[in-house]
Amino acid sequence: MGLIRSWVASANDDTDFPLNNLPCGVFSLQNQEPRCGMAIGDFIVDLTALEEDGIIGFAEGPLFDVPFWNEAMEAGPAVWAELRATVSGLLAEGSSQRAQVEPHLVPRAKAALHLPFLVAEYTDFYAGRNHAVNVGTMFRGAENALPPNWLHIPIGYNGRASSVVVSGTDVRRPWGQVKSPEHDLPAFQPSRRFDIELEMGAVVGQASDHGYPVTVAEAEEMIFGYVLLNDWSARDIQAWEYQPLGPFQAKATATTISPWIVMRAALEPFRVSTPAREKPLLPHLAEPKPMLYNIELEVGLTPAGGAETVIARTNYAEMYYSAPQQLAHHTTSGCAMNVGDLLGSGTISGLAKDSRGSLLELSWGGKEPFAVAGGTRSFIEDNDTLVLRGAARAEDYRIGFGECAGKVIPALADPYKRN
Amino acid sequence: MGLIRSWVASANDDTDFPLNNLPCGVFSLQNQEPRCGMAIGDFIVDLTALEEDGIIGFAEGPLFDVPFWNEAMEAGPAVWAELRATVSGLLAEGSSQRAQVEPHLVPRAKAALHLPFLVAEYTDFYAGRNHAVNVGTMFRGAENALPPNWLHIPIGYNGRASSVVVSGTDVRRPWGQVKSPEHDLPAFQPSRRFDIELEMGAVVGQASDHGYPVTVAEAEEMIFGYVLLNDWSARDIQAWEYQPLGPFQAKATATTISPWIVMRAALEPFRVSTPAREKPLLPHLAEPKPMLYNIELEVGLTPAGGAETVIARTNYAEMYYSAPQQLAHHTTSGCAMNVGDLLGSGTISGLAKDSRGSLLELSWGGKEPFAVAGGTRSFIEDNDTLVLRGAARAEDYRIGFGECAGKVIPALADPYKRN
Repeated sequence: MGLIRSWVASANDDTDFPLNNLPCGVFSLQNQEPRCGMAIGDFIVDLTALEEDGIIGFAEGPLFDVPFWNEAMEAGPAVWAELRATVSGLLAEGSSQRAQVEPHLVPRAKAALHLPFLVAEYTDFYAGRNHAVNVGTMFRGAENALPPNWLHIPIGYNGRASSVVVSGTDVRRPWGQVKSPEHDLPAFQPSRRFDIELEMGAVVGQASDHGYPVTVAEAEEMIFGYVLLNDWSARDIQAWEYQPLGPFQAKATATTISPWIVMRAALEPFRVSTPAREKPLLPHLAEPKPMLYNIELEVGLTPAGGAETVIARTNYAEMYYSAPQQLAHHTTSGCAMNVGDLLGSGTISGLAKDSRGSLLELSWGGKEPFAVAGGTRSFIEDNDTLVLRGAARAEDYRIGFGECAGKVIPALADPYKRN
Repeated sequence: MGLIRSWVASANDDTDFPLNNLPCGVFSLQNQEPRCGMAIGDFIVDLTALEEDGIIGFAEGPLFDVPFWNEAMEAGPAVWAELRATVSGLLAEGSSQRAQVEPHLVPRAKAALHLPFLVAEYTDFYAGRNHAVNVGTMFRGAENALPPNWLHIPIGYNGRASSVVVSGTDVRRPWGQVKSPEHDLPAFQPSRRFDIELEMGAVVGQASDHGYPVTVAEAEEMIFGYVLLNDWSARDIQAWEYQPLGPFQAKATATTISPWIVMRAALEPFRVSTPAREKPLLPHLAEPKPMLYNIELEVGLTPAGGAETVIARTNYAEMYYSAPQQLAHHTTSGCAMNVGDLLGSGTISGLAKDSRGSLLELSWGGKEPFAVAGGTRSFIEDNDTLVLRGAARAEDYRIGFGECAGKVIPALADPYKRN
C-alpha cells in the first residue's frame, strides 16, 4: 500500500505526517486550553472541535472532552480503528466533508504540544542486546557482559511516571550522591556524566486484570501505539546507587517522549521479526508473528549556539525483545497493567560504533571522546540540546514521530535554595 | 499526654482506635458506595455524611465527596490539623454535638474497608539494617553483606502501584520464571518460595516540584501518615531476575496495606531517633530531630483451619533511615513526588532470630524451617493467612493500625486459561 493522498497538500510530500500516519497528540494555541488532535502534514486536525461540532462521534460518548488520550485509549481497539477510518475519510482527497473539516485545521508551527496522555506507571526495559553487551562489558568485563537471565526474560525495572515530560521541556542537570574510587566517602554534587538513552516507548491502551497474565498476542492488542523516548541517565549517580536494587535517582530526573503517539495500525506495513534466538525462549514469551518494526532512528546533538551533529543512527529492529513480549512478561506475576502505562524499550544500539544509543557507549565510558561540531563530547555539556528522530520508510511516504528534544540546562547552584 | 476520653465508650479501653488516634479510612456498608471515615473504638465516624450535613466543613470546599483521602491530603497540613481538632472535639467526652454526630457512627464490624487512597506511585526501600545484613549474607556472603552504598543512602527501587491492595484481599501465588542451579535452562512455574516482608508505609500527602529537591525537614511535612505494609515477595523469581536492574515481577503480585492511615500527629508522642551512624551521613540526608517512631510490630501466620502462631515481633525503631530521610533522598535528582505516593520502609527485622520480618530470614533461606502451630514453615504454604499488626503504646492507650492481612490462595492451574 502506498501513500494515501489527502486534500491537505503538505501531507502528500516529504512529511512525517502523511494521511497514512495520523498520530495522536495534545496541543493548544495561545490562550487556549489543551485539546486532542492528530497531525496531518503541516497541520493538526482538532478532534475536540470536530467532536463538539458533531462531525465525529462515538457510541461510547465523548472521548475528546479531556486534554489527554486516555479516554480514547480506554474505549478499545474497535474504536481506535473506527477513529482512524473516520478521520482518514474526512481528510482524504475528494472528501465531501472538506468544507466542514478545514476550519478545524491548526498550523502545527503555531501550536504548543503537551504530554499526549496521563502516564499511569512507567517501566523501562533493557532489551537491546548491543547496548546490554556494551554496558555489561564496561561495568563487569567482556566475560560477564550479558547477565545469565538476559537471553531468557526481558529484564526491566519500574521507573518514575512523574519524571515523564514532553519534547521541548528543558532538563536540568541533576544533583546526586556519587563516589569516585579515589575517595573514601561519597559526595553530593551535580552529575558530571549526564547522558541520554535512545529508546522507543510503547503506550498501553487497554488494562489487564490483576492476578492474570496475558499472552504475547493479547499483549500486542493492548498496545495503543508508540513514541520516541529519551531515558535521561546520570551515569555517576547510577554507578554508586544501582547495587543491589537497580537504578533509582539516576533515572528520575526526566524522561522525554515525543509529542505524537503513532498508532499501531500506522506501523503495520513495517513489521519485522526479532533476531534469531541464541537460546530458545520459554513458550509463554515466544512471538507468534513479527512484532518489531523497521523504524530508522537517529540522535542529534547541538551545542549552545552551534550546529547539530548526528551522533548515532540505528534502527528499532535491533531489539532482542518486542514490546508485546515485554508487556506479556510484565504480567506473568499477575501484575495489573493499566491504560496509560508506558514501557521503554531499552536503549537501541547497533553493532557499529556510530549506531550506539547513549553517550556512555559512544565515548566508551568517557575514555574515547567523540567529535561533534565545534569540539568533542564524553557526556552531555550544559546547554547541549539532544534530539531523537525516527521514521518508518515506505517507497513514497514515511511514518514519522516528530522530534523528541530536550536542552540540558545547568544544575541548580544550591539545590535547596529557591530563586 | 494520656488518653483523651470520648463519649464513644469503646474508644476508652483496650482499643487500637482511641480518640488520640483518629485514623483515616474508606468504608462501605452493604449496598452503599464507599465513603471516607475515621475509626473510633468499635465504630467508624462517617465523614462524608458529617460533611454533607454541614457538621464539618472546610474553606477548601468538600474534601469527602470522593471515596479516597487524596483530596483531603492535597488540602495540606493546616487542614489536616483542623480536621483532627474538629473531629476530636465532636467525639470528646462532654461534646455538645453528640446528638448530631451519633447517627453517623457505623459499627466497624459491619463495614467493608477499601483502599484509603488512590496510590499514585509506589517506592520500596531497603532501610532495615538487620534485614539487609541477613539477606546480603545469604545472597553474597557475610563479608559482602552490606553493599558499599548502604550506610550512605537509603537504597530503594520503584515498585508497582497497581499491585497495592487493602488488607483482607486474597493473594494468589504467582507464576514466574525461575532457574535452579542444577538446571541449564529456566522454567516457568508457580513460585515455591513465596514470602512476606513486614514494613511500614509512609503516605505522601503533599507534592514536590519537579526539578527541586526537598530537605529532610520539608519531607517530613509532606508525609500525611503511616500504614502497615506487606511487600509480598517471590524469592525464587527474585533470585533469577534481580541482576542487574533490581526486583521486578517478584514484587509485583501484590502489596497489602492496612486499611487505616494513622496521621503523623497521632504518632507525635512516640518519636525516636534512628540508630547511631556508623559512617556520617552527608548533611542533606541528616535528621534535624528524631523522625522514627516506637511502633511495636508482629506477624501472625495461620494455616488453613489452624491456630495462629506469632512468628516475629519487632519494632519500627529498628530502621536505619526514617521515611523523611527516604523521601528527601527520593527528590535529590529533581524527581517530583505527588499526593498519594506510597513509600515502603523496607523490611523491619530485629537482631534476635524471632524478630525477623520475612520467612526468608526466619528460615534462613529455607535451610532452618521454623515451628508453627501444627507443623513447620520455610516459606508460605497455600491457604496460609499472614497478618501484620502494629501499635505505638503509651501508658493508658495505644495507637493501632488495624490488621494488614492476606490469605495466599493456590496458583492458577494454567495462568493463560480463565475459569
